[in-house]
Amino acid sequence: MSYRFEPGLIYRMPTHFGPAPGPRQLPPGISSNPKRSPRRLSVGASFLTDAALLERHLPEGFSLSGEPIVSVEFHYMTEIDWLAGRGYTMIHVSWPARFRGGRDRSEGRFLAVVWESLADPIISGRDEVGHPKLYAEVDEPREWNGVRFCTAAWMGFRFLELTVSDLQNAPSTQTPSSLDGTLMLKYVPRTGAWGEHEVRQVTLTPAADPDKTIEYRQTGIGTVRFCRADWSDLPTMHHVVNALAELPIIEPRGATVTLSRGGKPYRDQRILE
Amino acid sequence: MSYRFEPGLIYRMPTHFGPAPGPRQLPPGISSNPKRSPRRLSVGASFLTDAALLERHLPEGFSLSGEPIVSVEFHYMTEIDWLAGRGYTMIHVSWPARFRGGRDRSEGRFLAVVWESLADPIISGRDEVGHPKLYAEVDEPREWNGVRFCTAAWMGFRFLELTVSDLQNAPSTQTPSSLDGTLMLKYVPRTGAWGEHEVRQVTLTPAADPDKTIEYRQTGIGTVRFCRADWSDLPTMHHVVNALAELPIIEPRGATVTLSRGGKPYRDQRILE
Amino acid sequence: MSYRFEPGLIYRMPTHFGPAPGPRQLPPGISSNPKRSPRRLSVGASFLTDAALLERHLPEGFSLSGEPIVSVEFHYMTEIDWLAGRGYTMIHVSWPARFRGGRDRSEGRFLAVVWESLADPIISGRDEVGHPKLYAEVDEPREWNGVRFCTAAWMGFRFLELTVSDLQNAPSTQTPSSLDGTLMLKYVPRTGAWGEHEVRQVTLTPAADPDKTIEYRQTGIGTVRFCRADWSDLPTMHHVVNALAELPIIEPRGATVTLSRGGKPYRDQRILE
Amino acid sequence: MSYRFEPGLIYRMPTHFGPAPGPRQLPPGISSNPKRSPRRLSVGASFLTDAALLERHLPEGFSLSGEPIVSVEFHYMTEIDWLAGRGYTMIHVSWPARFRGGRDRSEGRFLAVVWESLADPIISGRDEVGHPKLYAEVDEPREWNGVRFCTAAWMGFRFLELTVSDLQNAPSTQTPSSLDGTLMLKYVPRTGAWGEHEVRQVTLTPAADPDKTIEYRQTGIGTVRFCRADWSDLPTMHHVVNALAELPIIEPRGATVTLSRGGKPYRDQRILE
Repeated sequence: MSYRFEPGLIYRMPTHFGPAPGPRQLPPGISSNPKRSPRRLSVGASFLTDAALLERHLPEGFSLSGEPIVSVEFHYMTEIDWLAGRGYTMIHVSWPARFRGGRDRSEGRFLAVVWESLADPIISGRDEVGHPKLYAEVDEPREWNGVRFCTAAWMGFRFLELTVSDLQNAPSTQTPSSLDGTLMLKYVPRTGAWGEHEVRQVTLTPAADPDKTIEYRQTGIGTVRFCRADWSDLPTMHHVVNALAELPIIEPRGATVTLSRGGKPYRDQRILE
Repeated sequence: MSYRFEPGLIYRMPTHFGPAPGPRQLPPGISSNPKRSPRRLSVGASFLTDAALLERHLPEGFSLSGEPIVSVEFHYMTEIDWLAGRGYTMIHVSWPARFRGGRDRSEGRFLAVVWESLADPIISGRDEVGHPKLYAEVDEPREWNGVRFCTAAWMGFRFLELTVSDLQNAPSTQTPSSLDGTLMLKYVPRTGAWGEHEVRQVTLTPAADPDKTIEYRQTGIGTVRFCRADWSDLPTMHHVVNALAELPIIEPRGATVTLSRGGKPYRDQRILE
Repeated sequence: MSYRFEPGLIYRMPTHFGPAPGPRQLPPGISSNPKRSPRRLSVGASFLTDAALLERHLPEGFSLSGEPIVSVEFHYMTEIDWLAGRGYTMIHVSWPARFRGGRDRSEGRFLAVVWESLADPIISGRDEVGHPKLYAEVDEPREWNGVRFCTAAWMGFRFLELTVSDLQNAPSTQTPSSLDGTLMLKYVPRTGAWGEHEVRQVTLTPAADPDKTIEYRQTGIGTVRFCRADWSDLPTMHHVVNALAELPIIEPRGATVTLSRGGKPYRDQRILE
Repeated sequence: MSYRFEPGLIYRMPTHFGPAPGPRQLPPGISSNPKRSPRRLSVGASFLTDAALLERHLPEGFSLSGEPIVSVEFHYMTEIDWLAGRGYTMIHVSWPARFRGGRDRSEGRFLAVVWESLADPIISGRDEVGHPKLYAEVDEPREWNGVRFCTAAWMGFRFLELTVSDLQNAPSTQTPSSLDGTLMLKYVPRTGAWGEHEVRQVTLTPAADPDKTIEYRQTGIGTVRFCRADWSDLPTMHHVVNALAELPIIEPRGATVTLSRGGKPYRDQRILE
């Protein structure tokens, strides 16, 4: 007898061995503590760029919202419940945007690309949430001589360097955001009908994250550098890195280092129309 | 101005930086040679197992075809064109099955799970082809004292060991298969509506692969061992590995080592209904 | 003109490019803070074993001191000054011993073997200090469900597993040790005269480490497991791992988790005679 | 009872568990085939540089011999007997030199620095042979569009890039060298007496390597680039890389790609005086 999908449970390929454990679904008997997990060291820097160039990287239905500021954030996570205490790193690249759909309107942070250092959340994030995740090798975070260094590479080609220096302690209270949350485009191509798609939909992570607590927060001066690549250096993503490398850095716009605990697993992610 | 999707070109998340280079689409000016690329060392072993247990891991519409024989193959690939000459390793787990859909009928190798040592083809294979790919660390292939050793792990937990010994040279001609090809289930969950799906479709890789040339072929005696894992050992795939570990090895059924060149990029993959 | 060695400065192979930077010698203009660096998470467990078996692994001039208790400690270090803020992990295996030389007598912890996850301190520690260091892959430390997990492997073969559970907070004050320090055997073979040696000398790390501060300390229940290996699994060190695997675990003897800051760079290391 | 060293057998730290298996000593019952092992893909390029600058990196007793030509070679080795069929990569940097000692005179290739991608041969090579080995991450060799790419890094910082293009088949016969072999300086610092040494001796690898067979040989046009590093980028070896980066490339001097089988394990290494 072949198997049946159990209703209400999340599956991912391969589906043939039962529901898929992951951030949004733990096996029976395994519990998580979203107030403690994960521990997250976040290092981010932003820069003002050219609005017209940036807009070329927004999908239909989106427009820039306010100043064209690109934010790059490294999130070094440890003590992750759904990985039984292991960790990995995420890199987010985003800018402010507005979405106007047939039904929904939303204003938020447009998440243009994510790199992660572990394949498992790349798979679950792409499939379940619509996170535009790619793989990168990320060196351990380090601070030397008052400077935070963050780097990412692919097969030995370093394509992103971010630093934050002149760190100052800052209030750890987060001002409640007026934004609706984080916007992204979930896309799955259609097999065989090359160029067509199975899924093309805007998804939203609502802004609220009540289980997250900030332990400390520092501000500083940041630098961001995307390194131009030949196709041969980054054969699956030179187009992504080069598009970001082409954005002019008109002026730096703030940098932060934050240590936090807890956070939601994006079960509140939803489709906008 | 936001961007538009160019018709006829393959996109993957993130779609915002242009069509996605990969195995089925190279950038303009980059050419591939499917008669030479990749170079592939394949090491495989099969075993007879229990039909009723195996059938539990077939989706609706599928049934076992012939003897319940599980095949495990490591494919160590190098000189891959679409990676500008780099390599990675695939592990295929399959068994013979028959699909009867509303419209199509097909008999072939049911590809139950694939592990790969590189995230990039995991992403493109899942999205474009429906390959049920997960990530594994794969040690370099090695031969010692007449035995080929193949191992795979995740975050240091070795979950699969395969050996082939008593190697004998064998004819390198492939008997044309009477099978239609390789069958798999493409599945993408629906965001927010947890338990529902966006895509659930059977896809087929037709058997023909005319650009592939076998340089040598050996037969031998194989062993396969899936190692039972606690959830804490393999928090995203203990269910997959344990299901395979539970299949009894009633008797070994042949093992091969093959060196080949060339192969198709699965642009002929299609959906069955 | 060929170069001359500058007096008073530490050199290591290759010596041709100037004095060698490392834990005991920083370049001009680079300063370290031994009260802050490194940050060290230490997880250790001990067991009582058979005295006669253990004694077989002591060099001439040494004898066991007190009970035959083997201690295994993982030291996960980060924020290391001499690595510009990077980290790595050390594993120490030791037991209590007494040295009686021609001139010196000393009682301490006999450091039988060290594994480290980075080649650079392996090189400097072997050459400068006499640390019996080998290489191991060490997974990130993790805690899950109240249990600390520590594992080490070589080329994918996991040879050491250590856990500490039932953690209880304990006083962080260290009782001053009555021991002289840590004892080891520095050994360098002689090139060409195979079987002879250039260096065979006992070296001592004096016990005092005034810059080290313990931030917290927990006690618990520990397990230690060395995994027997074939030569083919660990071709350069199966003899080390198997000798340790053969030591019977008569009873567990305490386990600790400690977080500390600071520590000396072993410039006080000296030769006993 | 403590252990005794068995005469005639090679030991390395830790010596407490018996003689040390490695390239020059296999355990009883394990045999090697120096005519087959290793398989070695060698990619090298040379350049003419400034004699006075180069001479500064020769130890006392050495002088340049002939033109100041720096050779950089990547040796990608697989099927290594003493690693039970595994592989690793060596990088050699050398130039021609003459040694005049109190007793011996020799002319050969001065091996200034070696990088390797595996700690085990770094340890045995430094201790037993006097190889000036350091650790580097080395990407898999690759060829794309007629160009061979070789790269090396440390903790993500790429410090060496070598390419060979315009490859032409060349005779695979090696002209017998008139050189005595490869010269190096074995050096071990003295513990506690910082700045003094235990070992400082010239060692020689005689030129003959009768078990080595060249399977093919190509010549081409090479490029070599050492990348200048801050101390923070390469805290244990910025001085080595920067010294090499400072050597002017006056003109390229040949490049080769060679595939070979077999080779000696340097048991003929000897000390010159």
